[in-house]
Order: sequence, then structure tokens, then C-alpha cells
Amino acid sequence: MSSEAPAFTPEVEAAIQTVREDVARLHGELVRYNLIVWTGGNVSGRVPGAELFVIKPSGVSYDDLDASNMILCDLDGNVVPGTAGSERSPSSDTAAHAYVYRNMPEVGGVVHTHSDYAVAWAARGEEIPCVITAMADEFGGPIPVGPFAIIGDDSIGRGIVETLRGHRSRAVLMQNHGPFTIGVDAKDAVKAAVMVEDVARTVHLAREAGPLIPIPQEAIDSLFNRYQNVYGQNADARR
Amino acid sequence: MSSEAPAFTPEVEAAIQTVREDVARLHGELVRYNLIVWTGGNVSGRVPGAELFVIKPSGVSYDDLDASNMILCDLDGNVVPGTAGSERSPSSDTAAHAYVYRNMPEVGGVVHTHSDYAVAWAARGEEIPCVITAMADEFGGPIPVGPFAIIGDDSIGRGIVETLRGHRSRAVLMQNHGPFTIGVDAKDAVKAAVMVEDVARTVHLAREAGPLIPIPQEAIDSLFNRYQNVYGQNADARR
Amino acid sequence: MSSEAPAFTPEVEAAIQTVREDVARLHGELVRYNLIVWTGGNVSGRVPGAELFVIKPSGVSYDDLDASNMILCDLDGNVVPGTAGSERSPSSDTAAHAYVYRNMPEVGGVVHTHSDYAVAWAARGEEIPCVITAMADEFGGPIPVGPFAIIGDDSIGRGIVETLRGHRSRAVLMQNHGPFTIGVDAKDAVKAAVMVEDVARTVHLAREAGPLIPIPQEAIDSLFNRYQNVYGQNADARR
Amino acid sequence: MSSEAPAFTPEVEAAIQTVREDVARLHGELVRYNLIVWTGGNVSGRVPGAELFVIKPSGVSYDDLDASNMILCDLDGNVVPGTAGSERSPSSDTAAHAYVYRNMPEVGGVVHTHSDYAVAWAARGEEIPCVITAMADEFGGPIPVGPFAIIGDDSIGRGIVETLRGHRSRAVLMQNHGPFTIGVDAKDAVKAAVMVEDVARTVHLAREAGPLIPIPQEAIDSLFNRYQNVYGQNADARR
Repeated sequence: MSSEAPAFTPEVEAAIQTVREDVARLHGELVRYNLIVWTGGNVSGRVPGAELFVIKPSGVSYDDLDASNMILCDLDGNVVPGTAGSERSPSSDTAAHAYVYRNMPEVGGVVHTHSDYAVAWAARGEEIPCVITAMADEFGGPIPVGPFAIIGDDSIGRGIVETLRGHRSRAVLMQNHGPFTIGVDAKDAVKAAVMVEDVARTVHLAREAGPLIPIPQEAIDSLFNRYQNVYGQNADARR
Repeated sequence: MSSEAPAFTPEVEAAIQTVREDVARLHGELVRYNLIVWTGGNVSGRVPGAELFVIKPSGVSYDDLDASNMILCDLDGNVVPGTAGSERSPSSDTAAHAYVYRNMPEVGGVVHTHSDYAVAWAARGEEIPCVITAMADEFGGPIPVGPFAIIGDDSIGRGIVETLRGHRSRAVLMQNHGPFTIGVDAKDAVKAAVMVEDVARTVHLAREAGPLIPIPQEAIDSLFNRYQNVYGQNADARR
Repeated sequence: MSSEAPAFTPEVEAAIQTVREDVARLHGELVRYNLIVWTGGNVSGRVPGAELFVIKPSGVSYDDLDASNMILCDLDGNVVPGTAGSERSPSSDTAAHAYVYRNMPEVGGVVHTHSDYAVAWAARGEEIPCVITAMADEFGGPIPVGPFAIIGDDSIGRGIVETLRGHRSRAVLMQNHGPFTIGVDAKDAVKAAVMVEDVARTVHLAREAGPLIPIPQEAIDSLFNRYQNVYGQNADARR
Repeated sequence: MSSEAPAFTPEVEAAIQTVREDVARLHGELVRYNLIVWTGGNVSGRVPGAELFVIKPSGVSYDDLDASNMILCDLDGNVVPGTAGSERSPSSDTAAHAYVYRNMPEVGGVVHTHSDYAVAWAARGEEIPCVITAMADEFGGPIPVGPFAIIGDDSIGRGIVETLRGHRSRAVLMQNHGPFTIGVDAKDAVKAAVMVEDVARTVHLAREAGPLIPIPQEAIDSLFNRYQNVYGQNADARR
């Protein structure tokens, strides 16, 4: 670490290290669930108690990712100079992640992939209808579509935030592009990325063979509320 | 194990331990055959000679499952206090498993997954027609659909039992939800979960390209009877 | 090995051992290429210089297959008593394999799977048209469909032989059942099983999106002849 | 190495060894991304500073490929006698690779696979429309189709060169055959082979469920230009 590195408190240093390890490791889940090919896809995590987040470097093989080459950024998406990994460029989607962290303080993790079934819905600009109970549990309704936006300004980040703010879904399908997911932390956002591809695939398969049976709205509400509140060992880790 | 733990006979203790090991290990088969993502899906097994069954904890990573964190329940689905793993919550589908064990004494194992092709048929509420010989062998006819039911009371368990009681099939597609399978033991129910996804996929693919050739009922009967009676090294392990 | 074991010459003993090892190992290729689930599928190999073949036991996990539990059979499909593995039942498809060996002396290996795309064509009773050059190379034309036949007599074996005798294809899709493939040895038949699923999948995908371009017959002939004669390091190992 | 081996300068010897290692290793990426079955598919790499390239042997298992059995060829596709691996036949697609290297001096790597979705488009002779941003990034527009051509003369190589010369795309779908990709080196061509299958699959899935939303040409241009110039850590490694 060079002499330019900022002086963080020991608590923040420890939090940065934890997020670096989590974010590096969680990229492995994108591989495990076949959500990415080559160097596509990226996971980031907010550093609790600081105006910082950690994201993967651009164009580096998933085999070579570890805590020390993850990149620390401020909430404007600028690399924090003098910190581990800062000699590399961060993911080309860093500006979109930063925009989400700046505008959605409740978000602790952001994930972007090009997982195939989710991208297929995005290429048609079509939301995924909520016809399976696992989707009601996880997303509380349909997966919405965000606007067409290309890299170069804040338009991707703004599209994500405008679509997901106040929405039950933690996933948005950016038109012609692919899914972005958010969560209370990086792991939660990765789970949403895994689940959105799973429901994108299942509903695609279901619909190509005939008409789907809708789930009544009150059943969707009931499933969503139960799952957010009582599922798992640490329900309050979700929200 | 705390002092509240019930005093089981050595035979029951040994049986519990065997089922714990089997159930923990069999979750690995759900992973191997891509039947689940994240923490979805669950396997349970009845403890022979006792009013007990073993099931997985809720929301725990498949990488972390082992015999010691499987959860022992009575046939009302209550965790047996003071036993290994009892500090955790059991699978959120525990009530459905318990209902099956209470009402189908011949059942020794229950499995639930959200495997994609099976869920796709469930989202249309459509039974899978028996057009391949492997399906006649294993299920003896079509895979039936069970009612729409949501978590919160006995309605899922009742739907499973009412659909499968007296039916050749060991698998039911619960509408908008997914497959539940039963078997003489946990392994047999896992096999049924693997096979139901395989036939759901194959018949989906077959039908999307043109009309299917039905198998005559007497051939289905002949295949089912042969398979149940003579296949494998331990035919009587199946029924 | 019990005292009933026949006295083979050392050459035949050595050949049996080689085929046992090959057949056990080649089942791993069925797993690698996702052609089978659970204990489905089987590979057999003829013992050169003897009226014998080696096949897998029935209903045994693929994890547990090795040379010593493969089963030695005569060309009527009877287990050779007193030989390694003879205490178990052979694959329930043994009679079909034996029929092929009895009636096609040029065949040194037979494979059967329920690979999904191949079974999908079989469930429609539809041959796979030859629209890709790799298929012309490997099979020299379409993959034919064999008759509906069920286990219990020689009808499966007869259907395979009547369809493949004099045909360029080493694969047949038995109606409503699945693919059987043949080869000069077990490895060659396994290759055909891998390739038939690959072409079944590719042509399925191609056709569901629009009309296919046929390959002129003379190009098919040219590709097939070249591939059978010059491809690979050991062209004469193929024919 | 026999006495016939040509005397290369130490620099060329070192470059040959590096390319041998890269080409052998990169075949593993074709396996990792499920682009090939059995011994299908091949990767080659030009030796910088020499009129030579390295390609895989014909019909050899992917498990057995290493630097020492890769084959060194001149730009007419003739094996360089006396060099490591020269006792074997090179890939049956060697003539096509050689034609590309002779006629496109900017190309440093060539890859051919039979990846299923790409072949499916090729069997219809249909180009893949550019409807996803990752495809605009990587290929700058649609993936073109090349002519029907069979092994035996220069027609495959000529078809590749005539289609890709002056085209943004590094991938061509040879009709009824499959994808060939080019790159600045072997790794770049492998990346293109991975990406062309990914986009072939995604656009196939997208279109089978309804109409696609086109991406405006100026957005495609902008994405392509940015990606070629600024993406990754070593942008100039791409072009």
C-alpha cells in the first residue's frame, strides 16, 4: 500500500477487509450457477460505516480474483488511491454500482450478470410474470424491466434506481442488457442474481408449452410477507 | 446434547444416526443433478421403528449440511428438543413432510425441489403424459398435478397425500409450486425427484417439436410391473 | 472366484480383464456428457477372440462401478457362473446387447442411454435429419428410428439389428424408449452415444427456430467417406 | 526431436514453446464452457515472428493434450518435420486455419467448435441479430454466415476470410457446419468462441418467446468503440 493510502480507522480497515473477502469469494457463486462466461459479471459490496464500496477489477479472469485485487471505490465510483488493487481499473460497470449506493442507502450489495434467460427477457423488454411460489417468496411479484441505457454516464444507474425504488423486487432487467440485483449485502444481491436467472428460465420454459395459471395477488402477498419475515435462521439478515 | 434430550433406546439412537447421515448426504444428489439452487429443496427420512423423521435446517448452505445439523422432528413436525441441531429452525416445508408421514405409513422418505422443468409443468397445472418407457418403469403412468396450496396450514401436505394415495406415481407436481416425491426411504424419494425432472424435461422437449406417440396402456402396465418387481439388485428395497 | 469358473486360456483371461476395465471406465463418459441419470444407461464390450461380452450390473450406482463388478456373459446373455461379479444381476438390457452381438459379428460394443434430446425424437418416432456436417461425418445420414418394443423377449435386440444392419448410422432411436448405439468396440459405441445426443440437441434447437438447409447427398457421402477413412490417428480403429 | 528438425533461432524456439503451452491449455477452456464433445473443436495460435502456427493433433482426447503433442505447421498447413508431435496428424481443419493465417496477417489465433446453439443458427444459414449490448461490445453487430464448404480444398478457409475480412465480427457461422473465430492471439479467438455460443444461445432463447427490440445502430457503434478501446486492463492486447 503506497504512502498516498488514506488513513482509515481500524474498524473501517477491518470492515474493508471483510467486504474484500466476501466480494472476491462471491464471484465464485456466479461461476457455480453458470451466470457468467469469461470475465463478464460483477459483484460489489458496501463497506458498513463508510462511504465506500468494493468491486472487482475489469477484465480479470475469475480464477485470479482474490481479496487483494478487489478494488476500493468511493461513492462517486472513484478508485481510492494507494489501496490494494488500486493500480488496476475497476469493473466497467462501476459507475452504475456507485449510483445505486449513492441513491439507495439501504442497499449493501449490487450484482450484474449476463445470465442467459434473464437477458432473453431483457432483449424483448418483457417483465417476468409471477407464476411460481418461489418467485412470490423471493421477489414478491413480477421482475420489472428498466430502460435502455448505455455505458458512459449515469443512465444505467439511474434506470436501476428508478425501477427498483419502492419496488418489492431486488432484480431489474435492463432492456437489451441484462439483470442488475440489489440486496442488504453482497451475498443477498448474489442470491437475487441466482434466483432471477432460475425464475427467468422456469417461466420461459413454462410459457413456451402453454398458458400459465396466475397466482392470486393475495397469495403472492402472503408468501412474500412470510418469506421476508420468517424464512431461514436469520430472518433479520434480509431486511 | 442438552439434558432435555429424550432417552431413546440404543436401537432408535442408532437408527436416528443412520437417517441423519443418509439425509445429509442425499442433499448432495439434489446438487449433483441440478435440482436446486441456493438453499432451496429439502430431503427428509423417517426413522424406522419410531414416530420420528429427520429433515434439513432452513436456509442453510448445502455446503454446510452434515449429520449433526440435520433436525429431528416428531410426526407433528415439532423439533425434538435437546437433540443435535435442535437450536435451528427446520425446513419451512417441515409441516408438509410431517403430514405425509402421519398419513402415509408406507412412506419412508419425502423430497421437495423447485427443479425447473417440473416447476414449468406445475405453473401450467398440467400433468406429464407417459410417453417414454423409462417413465412407465418408474412412475407407471402420468405424473399428476396437486392443488394450489400455500404454506401456513396443512394444505400442502393434504394436497400431496390426496393426490398420491392409491396412485402409482411417487411424484406430484403441486400447482404453481413444484414437485414433491415420496419413497420407501429417503434415497428412493430422491431417485423419484431426479427422475421426475428428467421426464419433465424430456417430454417438454419432445412435445415442443411435434405430436407424441402414446404408449399403449398394457405396455405401460407391463413395464411398471416388471420394474417394480425385478429391476436392480434389491428389488424388494423398492416396495 | 468360485470353483465353477470356466478355464479360459491366458489370452482370453487377459482380454476379459481389458474389456472389464474399458467398460467400467467408459461408464464415466456417460456421466461426463450428462447422458444418464441415476443408474440408467449401460455400456457393454465384446471380448475379442471369445463368445463373450462384458456388461454393467443392474441398478448399481455409477460411483461404485469398477472392473471387478462388471459382469461376464455369453452371447445368449447368460452370466458366466463363477466369474467376478457373477453374484449380481446384469443390466436389464442384457438380452438386447446379446442379441446384437449374436447377429452382428462386426460389432464390438453396444451402448444404451436415455439421453434427453435423443429420447425426445424417439417419443415422436421421428428420425433426425442430416443437416450438419459433423453428423454427416459421424453417421453418414439421418439417425433412424427403430420399432416400439418392450423388455421381455428378443424384440428390442431384433429391432436394433433390423434397423442398423446395412445402415451407415451406428445409432438407432428405439421408439418411445431411447438410443442404442454400436461400434467396433465399446469406446466407439460410447462415442456414438455422445454424438447422437449432441446432434439430437443441435438439430432440435436449429429446427425450432426456422427451416433447415439440407446438405446435398453427394456432400454427405463425401464427408462420411473421408471421416471413416482418414480422420484421427488410427483411422483403421474405426472400421 | 529428430535430426531433421529445422534450426530455429532461440527467440523463435521460445515463442514456439509459449504458443504450444497456450494452445494446449486453451483447449481446456472449450471443455469448461461446454463448446465441444469428444475430440471435436480445435484451437491454433500463430508463432510471433515466424511463418508458423501451432495446432492440436487430430482425434486425440482432450485429457491427453499438452504442449509436447501440439503440432507445429508452416503457413501452408504442412507439419514441420522433426519437431515435437510431428509424428501425429494435425487437426483435420488445419488447412482452414493455415488459409486464414496466410491471408489475414493481423490474425494470431483461430478456433473452431461445433457448439450447439451456434451450429443451430448455421444449420438455418441465419445470421445472429445484434440485440444485446454484450454482443455489440464484443462483435460490433450481427454474427455473419459463411458459405457451405466441405473439407478437401481451400473452400472453408476462403469462406472464413471472405466473410470476416473488413467485418467487425471475429466470428463466422459456416453454413451447416459451425463457428470459426479469429483473434489477435489464440486466447482472444477462444474468447470469441465462448462469446459467440453465449450470444447464439441467448438470442435463440429471446426470440423463441416473442419479438426482439432492436438496438439503434449508433448505440451499437458506441458500445463497440468503447469496448475495443477502454475495456479491461490491457486494452491494446485486443487490437
